[in-house]
Amino acid sequence: MSISDSARAEVLAQAFPYIERFKGKTVVVKYGGAAMVNEGIRTAVVEDLLFMSCVGIRTVLVHGGGPEIDGVLRRLGKEAQFIGGLRYTDGETMEVVQMVLAGKVNKDLVALIQRGGGQALGLCGADGGLLTALARTAGPDLGLVGDITKVETRVLAMALDSGFIPVIATIALGRTEDEVFYNVNADTAAAEIAVALGAEKLVLLTDVPGILRDPQDTATLIAELPRAEVPALVKAGIVSKGMIPKVECCARAVEGGVGRAHIIDGRLPHALLLEVFSDRGIGTMIV
Amino acid sequence: MSISDSARAEVLAQAFPYIERFKGKTVVVKYGGAAMVNEGIRTAVVEDLLFMSCVGIRTVLVHGGGPEIDGVLRRLGKEAQFIGGLRYTDGETMEVVQMVLAGKVNKDLVALIQRGGGQALGLCGADGGLLTALARTAGPDLGLVGDITKVETRVLAMALDSGFIPVIATIALGRTEDEVFYNVNADTAAAEIAVALGAEKLVLLTDVPGILRDPQDTATLIAELPRAEVPALVKAGIVSKGMIPKVECCARAVEGGVGRAHIIDGRLPHALLLEVFSDRGIGTMIV
Amino acid sequence: MSISDSARAEVLAQAFPYIERFKGKTVVVKYGGAAMVNEGIRTAVVEDLLFMSCVGIRTVLVHGGGPEIDGVLRRLGKEAQFIGGLRYTDGETMEVVQMVLAGKVNKDLVALIQRGGGQALGLCGADGGLLTALARTAGPDLGLVGDITKVETRVLAMALDSGFIPVIATIALGRTEDEVFYNVNADTAAAEIAVALGAEKLVLLTDVPGILRDPQDTATLIAELPRAEVPALVKAGIVSKGMIPKVECCARAVEGGVGRAHIIDGRLPHALLLEVFSDRGIGTMIV
Amino acid sequence: MSISDSARAEVLAQAFPYIERFKGKTVVVKYGGAAMVNEGIRTAVVEDLLFMSCVGIRTVLVHGGGPEIDGVLRRLGKEAQFIGGLRYTDGETMEVVQMVLAGKVNKDLVALIQRGGGQALGLCGADGGLLTALARTAGPDLGLVGDITKVETRVLAMALDSGFIPVIATIALGRTEDEVFYNVNADTAAAEIAVALGAEKLVLLTDVPGILRDPQDTATLIAELPRAEVPALVKAGIVSKGMIPKVECCARAVEGGVGRAHIIDGRLPHALLLEVFSDRGIGTMIV
Amino acid sequence: MSISDSARAEVLAQAFPYIERFKGKTVVVKYGGAAMVNEGIRTAVVEDLLFMSCVGIRTVLVHGGGPEIDGVLRRLGKEAQFIGGLRYTDGETMEVVQMVLAGKVNKDLVALIQRGGGQALGLCGADGGLLTALARTAGPDLGLVGDITKVETRVLAMALDSGFIPVIATIALGRTEDEVFYNVNADTAAAEIAVALGAEKLVLLTDVPGILRDPQDTATLIAELPRAEVPALVKAGIVSKGMIPKVECCARAVEGGVGRAHIIDGRLPHALLLEVFSDRGIGTMIV
Amino acid sequence: MSISDSARAEVLAQAFPYIERFKGKTVVVKYGGAAMVNEGIRTAVVEDLLFMSCVGIRTVLVHGGGPEIDGVLRRLGKEAQFIGGLRYTDGETMEVVQMVLAGKVNKDLVALIQRGGGQALGLCGADGGLLTALARTAGPDLGLVGDITKVETRVLAMALDSGFIPVIATIALGRTEDEVFYNVNADTAAAEIAVALGAEKLVLLTDVPGILRDPQDTATLIAELPRAEVPALVKAGIVSKGMIPKVECCARAVEGGVGRAHIIDGRLPHALLLEVFSDRGIGTMIV
Repeated sequence: MSISDSARAEVLAQAFPYIERFKGKTVVVKYGGAAMVNEGIRTAVVEDLLFMSCVGIRTVLVHGGGPEIDGVLRRLGKEAQFIGGLRYTDGETMEVVQMVLAGKVNKDLVALIQRGGGQALGLCGADGGLLTALARTAGPDLGLVGDITKVETRVLAMALDSGFIPVIATIALGRTEDEVFYNVNADTAAAEIAVALGAEKLVLLTDVPGILRDPQDTATLIAELPRAEVPALVKAGIVSKGMIPKVECCARAVEGGVGRAHIIDGRLPHALLLEVFSDRGIGTMIV
Repeated sequence: MSISDSARAEVLAQAFPYIERFKGKTVVVKYGGAAMVNEGIRTAVVEDLLFMSCVGIRTVLVHGGGPEIDGVLRRLGKEAQFIGGLRYTDGETMEVVQMVLAGKVNKDLVALIQRGGGQALGLCGADGGLLTALARTAGPDLGLVGDITKVETRVLAMALDSGFIPVIATIALGRTEDEVFYNVNADTAAAEIAVALGAEKLVLLTDVPGILRDPQDTATLIAELPRAEVPALVKAGIVSKGMIPKVECCARAVEGGVGRAHIIDGRLPHALLLEVFSDRGIGTMIV
Repeated sequence: MSISDSARAEVLAQAFPYIERFKGKTVVVKYGGAAMVNEGIRTAVVEDLLFMSCVGIRTVLVHGGGPEIDGVLRRLGKEAQFIGGLRYTDGETMEVVQMVLAGKVNKDLVALIQRGGGQALGLCGADGGLLTALARTAGPDLGLVGDITKVETRVLAMALDSGFIPVIATIALGRTEDEVFYNVNADTAAAEIAVALGAEKLVLLTDVPGILRDPQDTATLIAELPRAEVPALVKAGIVSKGMIPKVECCARAVEGGVGRAHIIDGRLPHALLLEVFSDRGIGTMIV
Repeated sequence: MSISDSARAEVLAQAFPYIERFKGKTVVVKYGGAAMVNEGIRTAVVEDLLFMSCVGIRTVLVHGGGPEIDGVLRRLGKEAQFIGGLRYTDGETMEVVQMVLAGKVNKDLVALIQRGGGQALGLCGADGGLLTALARTAGPDLGLVGDITKVETRVLAMALDSGFIPVIATIALGRTEDEVFYNVNADTAAAEIAVALGAEKLVLLTDVPGILRDPQDTATLIAELPRAEVPALVKAGIVSKGMIPKVECCARAVEGGVGRAHIIDGRLPHALLLEVFSDRGIGTMIV
Repeated sequence: MSISDSARAEVLAQAFPYIERFKGKTVVVKYGGAAMVNEGIRTAVVEDLLFMSCVGIRTVLVHGGGPEIDGVLRRLGKEAQFIGGLRYTDGETMEVVQMVLAGKVNKDLVALIQRGGGQALGLCGADGGLLTALARTAGPDLGLVGDITKVETRVLAMALDSGFIPVIATIALGRTEDEVFYNVNADTAAAEIAVALGAEKLVLLTDVPGILRDPQDTATLIAELPRAEVPALVKAGIVSKGMIPKVECCARAVEGGVGRAHIIDGRLPHALLLEVFSDRGIGTMIV
Repeated sequence: MSISDSARAEVLAQAFPYIERFKGKTVVVKYGGAAMVNEGIRTAVVEDLLFMSCVGIRTVLVHGGGPEIDGVLRRLGKEAQFIGGLRYTDGETMEVVQMVLAGKVNKDLVALIQRGGGQALGLCGADGGLLTALARTAGPDLGLVGDITKVETRVLAMALDSGFIPVIATIALGRTEDEVFYNVNADTAAAEIAVALGAEKLVLLTDVPGILRDPQDTATLIAELPRAEVPALVKAGIVSKGMIPKVECCARAVEGGVGRAHIIDGRLPHALLLEVFSDRGIGTMIV
């Protein structure tokens, strides 16, 4: 890379006010989808987490893993079923979800952080009773899809106080004998966790540059979006399809006390640092 | 159950000296095999861990999961391969081992403890860099089977200090780019962890009553076995087959500073409490 | 004893929820009268205290010592005087009360706990200014009989935080030059201490099975007694004589924030554990 | 008193170097005999302890109580028996020793300190297992007279760390069933405690000005006495009778690591402050 | 000096209640003017600070340095300018004020305390952002004379918690590029610091015995002055000239929560101890 | 500046291993001479210190101030005197040195750091007894020039533990009545402080690029210099004049346990970050 040493030194020196601003604060990052599949991007995301954690930002990573789940289901000869864009989760699927999210994706991310020189702790909703859920009752029957009813942050506080980056697979503990685990939405889980931790920021790493008034024109990016305006944008169709739940959970997070919520383009290398360590930021900020 | 209340009270009162003796001490329990499949036994084991932990014993659970791994391999149409009793672990198998151990068996045990009212933390060798391994070079090529080269106890100390029961899936971090995870033997891992923690006791919950001079006669149980006598017993065939590595890792644990190592019958309900909270103990104690 | 090892293990395992419920909570036990004279009972009480303390219950013992005081007075050729059931305490008697309670009974109990393997600290009202009293002004002149005006819990907090069982002789500091110590009622002192500590439970170990509607029929035991009903029971004569102040100080303790107050039969071996470690409990619980 | 305010201010200012020198250091004071009977002296001793404690000196008070014991024995119609100057202690006498030392003298001193505005904790050898003894085997049979075999300082450390002045009655725990308490020599106990605490100073408050070469002439005071010279002084009869064990236990204390041991005249008002807060000191210092 | 050792010991013993009363409390002392020039007085003031600090009083010293500033200005051939009794502070003068106060007077006081055996930390308003000021806008233009807008006590808390005596030169940080430092009034600064620390006492060491109704007659000293009466005294001319701001800042300190404010005669040896360690106190106390 | 945001983000991400390597380690920086006069450079140095401190490096700044001292001396009509390149320091000069270093240069640096958003504490050798010196006896009489005999790091540890950057003016406490302060060499003081703190690095910010074999040719820079080779370089004249004491004190620092000592060009913007946050480093490293 062609940046001179003196330019590098200057960049570092200019990072000081951002570090001071976020030191000791909590940032919850949701990571999933396409940004997770590309190895270069994955490496850059891990580097961002390492930097944020090492300068004293309490960094929490929440991840999804849909493509990997589909892959294993396929190998088992089982077809993934979606109802209204949501995975129908029967008992056998749930077992796969659990194995893939908590055993494969989660621990692979932990391994990446550890090998990068950081300290990570891979958690699912059972560990320390982190996430409790009940079966979703509204909408169509989705099987073992649940909604979070409680976030118990003790295990996160312990990990963050000891300098670990908690990495969270979003399966939650059920309350009945038969339904030990529920599949919960990762964006929503990230938002609930951010609220429970009183986070300064919630950042969703997505596959889009943010919310665009015209999806064909990145110049129409909405940089800052007051949460009160979300319903109107949904109504106008500017926020649509898969973006609706993302924007709504950002709005709820801010409503719940999180400082700022961000929808940014996880495909950009070092998107996290671009957002946190500059005045402009990137993507759409929900306030 | 027919124990009178006053008999119960007396039992509790008599437990005091054992609690005092082990309070603040570390006990590493290895749990696997048949004892893990039976639901009643599993419940009793969890109850034992809960009791030990709540009276102040620093309790660590290390688990295997062979039958579950075989089950998933079968569902994937892949045959489990064994060489000299050891699982040949190619890359695809390793992925299954990781998913099943760290994602399924581990988190199911964590969920059981949490639902029982305790606090558990599910870990694999990647979390906090707990276990590092190198490919096994001695013996036949077993693929991604590794030998532990380092145990980093910081994450265990953090968990135990906060009152959590660490539950450990025995996959270890490799050092090279391609080989992220190694499959390591759970008995050996438990022994290495016990040594690294300076544990008071290592307890292997097995499917046998202990070491019998005559395998047909439980009256020939060797209650106490000095580690120096292990080679002779192996030579004499009294310790044979799958029991050899178990006894040898017990001997190495004691050699490494662990107070006592025990091979006990995990199929007995509350075998752990029977061992820890009585003068006689059960099974074979290696000293 | 004929309880099998496996039954014992099961009893322990079943104690877990009770230990969890009371861990870190405070239980104040008042011990006196007949239960104190019988050596077997005394041993069992000490065992109960040891168990409760070692599983993390903050256990405080308050004791009386009437029979021993009478014994020494007799040996000094001085007759014990009672007015309305209360000891008239002149200066010479107070000196004997002080010596016997704080020097003999208290330190003998401390010695029993220490020899049993526990940690005890023998205190009277002077230590750390634990109990301050003023001369009782209501009722007949009882000499140096006082009523507690202040409980200073700092010395108890220090002892409990360090794992000691405080053992308390109920003589209190006076405020004037001439009247250094006052004799205070041990039940009342226990109640006041329980209130000051915000205790979970106050347990009076007495010589009766609890409050009986018909004193001849133990089947008429009142298991649970709302404190509002105490006056009616006194009026009806169901609570009478020496039981009146006991029940009233239980009611006041609960009024003052103590979770539950219990009047149980101290003559039963392990009565304390029977009460604390079972759902049913024993005796009468004032709520 | 006729000291002007400005003279007082100057005295305080000049005390600074002594306070700095002894802050955080431990001073063990043995108090007994005639100095204990005079009320004015007792008040002054308590004032000295209060001052020492409040400026940060870890102050421990060990006391005797021979005259009070004799008084109670007399009232019980029992004659005190002495063999070679040592009290023969049968079971009944031991009970009186325990009651008077631990119940009367100890708690009266605690009350004096508390009323003076300090924080005191009255202990005997049973509390926290402070003093363990075995029956004395050398010399004539003295009944329940014991020699200290162990000093457990945990309870003292806890008290001193919390700003309490421990006040210690010198009865010790025995090890057998029948002999719960032993009567131990208070000077020796103070010396053993000073050694166990690594004290800076051991101060014996006695009824003499120190060691005099000519007992009739206070000008012959030995201000500083190397412990190696003690045997010669005993041989020469300069140290004789009751002074022999006092000087010997001072020598043993210094041998055991105590900085300095002092035999001073407890009848002088504020003898302790005179010793600690001046360069000259008073009495005889064993080094 | 002719005070006998026994008189000294008694003085110390009598100091106990005062030490207890002020232990852990904060006392802010303002020191300046004539009392600062006399070497004997300076030594005595330092001794007082050492004593107060070593018995646990959180002692803060704020100092002026007018005469020394005038001396250096003179040597630089620059005349000191005063407008209405206040120093006109141009840029060059401010540089001298900074050098003399923060470099000379401050560090000389620190050196005196250190050599006396204490621990001191010399601070100005820049250290840890202790004092922030804005240019004074009311009254005549005084150049770089400022009024304190913020006291940041973190650096003081750190120093006091570690047993240091903070010594404070009263120059304050400005907010603009050009005006780095402002000259602030030392009495006012002491009062603001006392308020910010929630001090128990503010003591101004002055060159007068206190507030006298008749300045010629020390018998007319006002020992206690309710702050509400200050305006009337000013109006009546009893408080006049340089004493007006001193009395007013005392009144504001008490208004702001400081326990007591004192105007005492710093020329008396050990004036501080005279005030703090006696019931009468000296000078005028504003309440 | 023309660095793109994405380049900036990458620079930050790449800084992680350096931050990890130096986190919690101590770096002592000596700053003086020409680099101190240029305002742009001064700003950049302060930015470097802020960055280093905020990422957890325990950063200590030691400064000189020769030009400023000369300026004030000149204004006072007093000529600076140098003997063999060293300032002859009579009493009057010492007073100026003290005022300028501890009052002006030191507090101006503190103000710069505070205004930049950091936390600084301005210290001289008197504060907390940081530096003690004796008059130099070797060589020509230099008046109040001293050599450091003791570094007391307690005040530095306190400041660093609380996140402050200690800024140190190199005047030291003398031991005699008349000679309160000594002028000590700032490079040497920095080296002694680095040794006393067990620093990882000592960095001297100078006016040269490092040690050059040919002073005319920066390509002859000696990047790494084993301390054993220093004498030969001096002998060969490659290290000469003012560079000799600098190189020698670097050598002594490394000898005394400091990890690495560096002579770098303080005139380069962000020279500190260039040195610490790159593999190559800049200037000459003495090992």
